[in-house]
Amino acid sequence: MSINSFGHLFRFTTWGESHGPAIGAVVDGCPPGIALGEADIQPWLDKRRPGTSRFTTQRREPDQVRILSGVFEGRTTGTPISLMIENVDQRSKDYSEVALAYRPGHADYSYDAKYGFRDYRGGGRSSARETASRVAAGAVARLVVPQVRIRSWVEAIGGDAIDYAAFDDAAIDANPFFCPDPAAAARWEALVDGARKAGSSLGAVVACEATGVPAGWGAPLYAKLDAELAHACMGINAVKGVEIGDGFAAAALTGEGNADAMRPGTDGPEFLANHAGGITGGIATGQPIRLRVAFKPTSSILIPVETIDRTGQAADIATKGRHDPCVGIRGVPVVEAMMALVLADQALLHRGQTGR
Amino acid sequence: MSINSFGHLFRFTTWGESHGPAIGAVVDGCPPGIALGEADIQPWLDKRRPGTSRFTTQRREPDQVRILSGVFEGRTTGTPISLMIENVDQRSKDYSEVALAYRPGHADYSYDAKYGFRDYRGGGRSSARETASRVAAGAVARLVVPQVRIRSWVEAIGGDAIDYAAFDDAAIDANPFFCPDPAAAARWEALVDGARKAGSSLGAVVACEATGVPAGWGAPLYAKLDAELAHACMGINAVKGVEIGDGFAAAALTGEGNADAMRPGTDGPEFLANHAGGITGGIATGQPIRLRVAFKPTSSILIPVETIDRTGQAADIATKGRHDPCVGIRGVPVVEAMMALVLADQALLHRGQTGR
Amino acid sequence: MSINSFGHLFRFTTWGESHGPAIGAVVDGCPPGIALGEADIQPWLDKRRPGTSRFTTQRREPDQVRILSGVFEGRTTGTPISLMIENVDQRSKDYSEVALAYRPGHADYSYDAKYGFRDYRGGGRSSARETASRVAAGAVARLVVPQVRIRSWVEAIGGDAIDYAAFDDAAIDANPFFCPDPAAAARWEALVDGARKAGSSLGAVVACEATGVPAGWGAPLYAKLDAELAHACMGINAVKGVEIGDGFAAAALTGEGNADAMRPGTDGPEFLANHAGGITGGIATGQPIRLRVAFKPTSSILIPVETIDRTGQAADIATKGRHDPCVGIRGVPVVEAMMALVLADQALLHRGQTGR
Amino acid sequence: MSINSFGHLFRFTTWGESHGPAIGAVVDGCPPGIALGEADIQPWLDKRRPGTSRFTTQRREPDQVRILSGVFEGRTTGTPISLMIENVDQRSKDYSEVALAYRPGHADYSYDAKYGFRDYRGGGRSSARETASRVAAGAVARLVVPQVRIRSWVEAIGGDAIDYAAFDDAAIDANPFFCPDPAAAARWEALVDGARKAGSSLGAVVACEATGVPAGWGAPLYAKLDAELAHACMGINAVKGVEIGDGFAAAALTGEGNADAMRPGTDGPEFLANHAGGITGGIATGQPIRLRVAFKPTSSILIPVETIDRTGQAADIATKGRHDPCVGIRGVPVVEAMMALVLADQALLHRGQTGR
Repeated sequence: MSINSFGHLFRFTTWGESHGPAIGAVVDGCPPGIALGEADIQPWLDKRRPGTSRFTTQRREPDQVRILSGVFEGRTTGTPISLMIENVDQRSKDYSEVALAYRPGHADYSYDAKYGFRDYRGGGRSSARETASRVAAGAVARLVVPQVRIRSWVEAIGGDAIDYAAFDDAAIDANPFFCPDPAAAARWEALVDGARKAGSSLGAVVACEATGVPAGWGAPLYAKLDAELAHACMGINAVKGVEIGDGFAAAALTGEGNADAMRPGTDGPEFLANHAGGITGGIATGQPIRLRVAFKPTSSILIPVETIDRTGQAADIATKGRHDPCVGIRGVPVVEAMMALVLADQALLHRGQTGR
Repeated sequence: MSINSFGHLFRFTTWGESHGPAIGAVVDGCPPGIALGEADIQPWLDKRRPGTSRFTTQRREPDQVRILSGVFEGRTTGTPISLMIENVDQRSKDYSEVALAYRPGHADYSYDAKYGFRDYRGGGRSSARETASRVAAGAVARLVVPQVRIRSWVEAIGGDAIDYAAFDDAAIDANPFFCPDPAAAARWEALVDGARKAGSSLGAVVACEATGVPAGWGAPLYAKLDAELAHACMGINAVKGVEIGDGFAAAALTGEGNADAMRPGTDGPEFLANHAGGITGGIATGQPIRLRVAFKPTSSILIPVETIDRTGQAADIATKGRHDPCVGIRGVPVVEAMMALVLADQALLHRGQTGR
Repeated sequence: MSINSFGHLFRFTTWGESHGPAIGAVVDGCPPGIALGEADIQPWLDKRRPGTSRFTTQRREPDQVRILSGVFEGRTTGTPISLMIENVDQRSKDYSEVALAYRPGHADYSYDAKYGFRDYRGGGRSSARETASRVAAGAVARLVVPQVRIRSWVEAIGGDAIDYAAFDDAAIDANPFFCPDPAAAARWEALVDGARKAGSSLGAVVACEATGVPAGWGAPLYAKLDAELAHACMGINAVKGVEIGDGFAAAALTGEGNADAMRPGTDGPEFLANHAGGITGGIATGQPIRLRVAFKPTSSILIPVETIDRTGQAADIATKGRHDPCVGIRGVPVVEAMMALVLADQALLHRGQTGR
Repeated sequence: MSINSFGHLFRFTTWGESHGPAIGAVVDGCPPGIALGEADIQPWLDKRRPGTSRFTTQRREPDQVRILSGVFEGRTTGTPISLMIENVDQRSKDYSEVALAYRPGHADYSYDAKYGFRDYRGGGRSSARETASRVAAGAVARLVVPQVRIRSWVEAIGGDAIDYAAFDDAAIDANPFFCPDPAAAARWEALVDGARKAGSSLGAVVACEATGVPAGWGAPLYAKLDAELAHACMGINAVKGVEIGDGFAAAALTGEGNADAMRPGTDGPEFLANHAGGITGGIATGQPIRLRVAFKPTSSILIPVETIDRTGQAADIATKGRHDPCVGIRGVPVVEAMMALVLADQALLHRGQTGR
């Protein structure tokens, strides 16, 4: 059992701490013969990169990826692909107070409880910086399932949701919030700026959709496609909830209200609805896979919070450092990466299980 | 990769179809020397058993468990524990229409898409009957973590939620809905009865809490305790959403509003709130573990729904058989079992990882 | 990590003790649509069955297998296949002395050291009886790789080896020793009978060959085909050595003497030798896979041996019970089963990894 | 399933090709709080390093290891330890002929059969260079089981074996062959030199012993300690056979001749022999763990061998490059590393499984 790996046939392992010399991922099980260079990975890292607007952490990391193995003459060889990203902008001195006292809601206390001590610099291994490794691995995964299109967006920040009637695909990349509703994006500017200036932070909901997933991917029972996606997404830093399709809203429906009726279509059935989010019995139906992910507000905030220090004494903590006022925003490329990583794995598994 | 197994050191594998001769589980990795007999398992199966009220399926299954291995002179030996439950009340003839056409929202279509054909009798492997195996395995898991108390209840049916101000622990087992709010239980009688008589079904939300989990259980990053719980619960039939702690509500909060402030306590810190549901950074904080699970309404309903048949032609389907009008109700012992199974595994993993 | 499971995509889990009510296997990951009935499994169990000659244990077990799940209308469905074999001829009273003192060379002492106590009846879980579950699972595996032909034989008993110049394929099943050399079979009758009458036992070497394995199955580095085979075979009771191809003899060769030179052939290369046993770099070359397995002599013998009892006091032990005078003989169908189980898994893995 | 990872709780993943920019390992599951620096790893790499005598390949690699993660203030944190070794002395031009034709006995042909193409420079991923990553990971594993002493030596080269009566522990590191018998070492100088000058190569047998392994480590049935060791060792490049204890010699013994009789000892039983190599029923007895490993002769030789090229045409191949005349010699630190890696994993598993 490896706690820093994910996947079955397409499997990746990440390593590295926020303020160590580098972070990285080893991608194992990538099929041979796929064209792959650093230029295929870098754009996705750039999308996640910190310091690109005042709405994300001001840490400046170029996040340049290097491929150290697994590629020969521009193509994957079937052997493990080692990806490395050097850390450049570490300021460990920012974290002296974190060394001594526990940030409520952060992993500080629980890591100490488990391991007896921790690398406190920037959160160490529990830092959202680790997600850069996932995004790099996810970029490889996308190439394994080129028939799949994945897109993700922020649906709500601090409880202020978009209007789906105003959904504009082109808008998503046109604002610093990955917001498909320009009016909401305008509101969020003031909202996130206000939180940032107040030394506070905000939660967010991220939605993700994958089209082009063939009916049949997935499996009963403990490797259900929805269970794998839930595992993948709940494992992202700050995530506290995952829904497939209608999710909790389905719990308020009747059987007939929740039924995704079918009619004969041109290429397989035509579905009249997608309450199920494209998955029944753990197996894809061929409809778009849809999920929603809840990100809690960043727990590292300037507003002082009551806590204890490592000796158990009462303390107040105000986290200076450089933090995202809304960690959910940069969650968008991470959720996309996890979707890609799960689907690449499912594609190989399905082929192995059934020969199709 | 085994798709019908779950867990790492404490690992179980289930087998069996709704209308085969039997179903069962093999529990591997149970520590030696634990007192175990069929009487330790049977009460939990009885709690899940169908046919005990008019609010569940009328299939009559005694669900008598037999222990076939792994126990000697009343104690576990460390070798695999084979548990078997014979199927008694099968009426395969009920399912002739399911053989021909796909129930929208059910696994019929996706199983055919994956495997090319399926055991259609009562849903075969995709039947909720499989969850009896999990409940039996979960009963063994409970004995591995006797310091943990797990309780679960229905929080809402068809969108009608309990009033937490009226929460009464003793009420949970005093009504057929596992409802802690007697007033809600009374309303649900009419609600579920109405759905049943109309040939419809209803969704439900199940909540679960585990107390006594020591700080430190769990792990970064791809075996986070919350990720494991999400995996476990999203893999239950009909589940479409999982929340840890405040879940989606946390996405609407500020950092200071979501902080679980700490004070010096008598035995470790005293927490002033539990927005995190007892887990930060994937590791238990020592607070109660809290999660919520969304069950969609049963997709097998008498009300006809537009669909296609196996040849791709248009059809209407009305599922006769015997089905739960609200499958979420019997989800309560299943969610409890999955909580126990995850925690037993985590207890062994933590001991292996850290020696504590 | 499951200690009673084996395989990746084609994976089986066994359970059961020598003197419990039953033993069995759950086969997970078998592709759908394969014709499977009990009649496909029984002949292989019959080949391994005890009590068929005076050269094996006199325990009389019919070893009738039942399929409890995973098959519908005579074909596999892709869901787990549960196989059960009831124990019939248990005489636990035979084992009173084993309960008190440790048989040297047997698992008695080490099981107690690990678990604190053990099911001593017939060796409990450490009994060679467990291999019946493997043989049943292996029979399913054979159907997954119908293009592969597996055959196995005894090459030596108690140091007396066959003459390969006299190798006769038809002879293997014509004597109770699975011996391809009729002259050796005649010698072994006296040899094994002598050991049996003396209350002693003998070791044996079993050879196995699989033809029809396509070039490309297998993988670098920690799932090498030879590493998987070594794992599978070293996990059989009483096995102490495994060789692939020339094995230890290759260590005495020169590079040119060990080279399997190649010439253009009609369908891929023609190999001029097979020192490698059909595997290079962990991947099949298309030549026959060849391995040899060393079985130690049965450790349960009538001749008294110096030992200690459970309280640490000096004792002599003479194991009455009913034991194989040469456990390697019945190892033949077990080695074949493990070969089939590994190859079925590799076939699915290769397909998943490469799409071929 | 990850094909480039090994282990369960203590698990490592290796990456890198012979002629890529670097190679490395990610060690996951190392317990927290262990003092670890590069100086703990470097001596073991130096022991395996090429170019230190004329009896190994003349490639000059400093094999300097860097720790990129998982260590804070000189101690392990429980998070993944990333180890990187840069490749310095690559001469890819040496390998032009290997690009075109297949070396008999090498992985060239089978890699092409599996993946369709390969990184031919120096064998790419199939190069023995990968074993440096294992040795680095093994150095970490040693620190997890400080109570265990592991030593390994060469027992025979090209069929010329040591005399165990002349075994001198101190001699092992005093000659370039890890040979415990000075007279044999003297003979091997001429033997290996002769093979090198003739453009040939020689096989070897490596023995390994681990003392201090407590009774109880290991497990039935598919994670037997001997099965894990066989898996680990058969996965080393060029290995074709593995024996535990007496191995194939046990197959020629009688039950009483093979019995490791026991007497009451001062601290647990005193064993009168160790035919079993310290393992019964897959579980350690507390005696020294003993195994032997057969290395075939290096398949890259100067003497021309008949082969085919990538287009299937007849060809002769003489491998120039720089190769070990006896790859088994540098196998000594690799076998030791695999022993350490398996035992570290077993220590954590045993603790998790039993709490001891």
